[in-house]
Amino acid sequence: MTPFEITILGSNSAVPTPTRHPTSQLLNINHHYYLIDCGEGAQIQMRKFGIKFQRIEHIFISHLHGDHYFGLIGLLNTMHLLGREKPLTIHANRMLREILNLQLSVSNTKLKYEIHYNYLDDETESVILKDHNVEVTATPVNHRIPCFGFIFRETEKPLNIKKESLQSLKLGVEEIKLLKQGKDIHRATETIYAADATEAPLSLRKYAFITDTKPKESYYEAIKNSDILYHESTFMGDATQRAADTFHTTNLQAAEIALKTNCKKLVLGHFSTRYTKLEPIKVEAQTIFKNTELAIEGTTFKIEH
Amino acid sequence: MTPFEITILGSNSAVPTPTRHPTSQLLNINHHYYLIDCGEGAQIQMRKFGIKFQRIEHIFISHLHGDHYFGLIGLLNTMHLLGREKPLTIHANRMLREILNLQLSVSNTKLKYEIHYNYLDDETESVILKDHNVEVTATPVNHRIPCFGFIFRETEKPLNIKKESLQSLKLGVEEIKLLKQGKDIHRATETIYAADATEAPLSLRKYAFITDTKPKESYYEAIKNSDILYHESTFMGDATQRAADTFHTTNLQAAEIALKTNCKKLVLGHFSTRYTKLEPIKVEAQTIFKNTELAIEGTTFKIEH
Repeated sequence: MTPFEITILGSNSAVPTPTRHPTSQLLNINHHYYLIDCGEGAQIQMRKFGIKFQRIEHIFISHLHGDHYFGLIGLLNTMHLLGREKPLTIHANRMLREILNLQLSVSNTKLKYEIHYNYLDDETESVILKDHNVEVTATPVNHRIPCFGFIFRETEKPLNIKKESLQSLKLGVEEIKLLKQGKDIHRATETIYAADATEAPLSLRKYAFITDTKPKESYYEAIKNSDILYHESTFMGDATQRAADTFHTTNLQAAEIALKTNCKKLVLGHFSTRYTKLEPIKVEAQTIFKNTELAIEGTTFKIEH
Repeated sequence: MTPFEITILGSNSAVPTPTRHPTSQLLNINHHYYLIDCGEGAQIQMRKFGIKFQRIEHIFISHLHGDHYFGLIGLLNTMHLLGREKPLTIHANRMLREILNLQLSVSNTKLKYEIHYNYLDDETESVILKDHNVEVTATPVNHRIPCFGFIFRETEKPLNIKKESLQSLKLGVEEIKLLKQGKDIHRATETIYAADATEAPLSLRKYAFITDTKPKESYYEAIKNSDILYHESTFMGDATQRAADTFHTTNLQAAEIALKTNCKKLVLGHFSTRYTKLEPIKVEAQTIFKNTELAIEGTTFKIEH
């Protein structure tokens, strides 16, 4: 089975500590690498966890609060120093380019690779990437500055060849290719019908990343039926007012959202530094949504078929 | 004895690893805190080593290559989030302010404390700070972009009261203050002469920080007779040409400089990531200058009287 994995590089809110880094996640979907947010130290975390960061093709930055992007310029610089030539695409607010270009210009750095920018300016939900059978949707959330959630889902998959057909019909490579597209095969002596030799593909997988937001119904439709919903949970249930004042979410609200949108698993993150123990955040959320876990850095969540 | 200590937070050159962070050092001189350079992760290193970073009064940035300042915006942001109100002075190239202000403005952050900037624009050596009996000199070095070394030295100290005078004369607080300034005390029944009751102060201490430079005679006078000379040593002796091409120094060149300028101890740092073992860098340098050590992160070098 091809991988669909999320590795947590950091999941603390603004103030980092030696064991709790700011937000960053690495997605491996069918061997293609995507980075979501890039707080300070993300490149060091990737080295620590043995992640080959030159393989990253797309970087998605939810918003321009520092705990979500201060590690980006360092990562880009290291990619350059290690000889990267493969282009990179950054999906982010337009001002990020200004910041990065200013930093590159004062150090007289001309990157050896190209950066393509996809600006997230429009405050409407849209598909921002479609490639390698993965579709990424950006959906505006509700924070103090413009901020987006990102939804990754596998798109249509080719049909699967039935095991017994593979064996009994001695299918060649070209024949398999055609059958997977639903086309019949006309051999000299027989016709093999795609409808007979194939079956429906495995289910399509879906991951939703929602951070730095007050709960807002507008993004519920987009995250519906996710295999995993990562949702920020800066505060616990007793700090609902503080969460609202700062445009954040509590663990109980995140659990209600997971329930309402029929997600299979909820992963909580973006913890306030006020919480020295994280376990109670999970336990409290589980009173509403049982399949809840914590985004502890170093953890990899795998979505199976 | 009052402290004069240098703690290494990071000493690798551009590419960081989990065990070797980019350049940053914390100085504690007579209980006043100074930060030199601030590579990515410096704030996390300070937490790890138990350093109270809100006590920092002055930050000195040698130059605007990322491995010397990418951690600064994160540190400033954390100081703000933790409620700092005490002003901070940053000594750096003028463009640093542009970068920081752009980053603060896109996140709508208004810092709760003031930052005073002291621009290091002038390409001549000058005293940039005189306070708390410490004098800091910035001296231009020879890198690919404007870059400065920093020399910290204790300035004149008050006279010391002789132990026997303290005991036999039962000196009051005001009397001690006057004697330390060299003034005689006129009591009703006797005169106490400063010349009798005091002795010369302990020797004045000096630390020189020289990074990212090709050797250049212009800074030799400024670093002369330092108790500790920290000198970059990006490469080893067999890479002299590579060092020259990239405007860096080898360990052997650094050792020659320490010898020529009569420094007491040499600390080597800014190691290229090509060196997986650091010990040989020291051993080779010791063939020229015996009292050589490595700037291993977490180490504190103390200058005694």
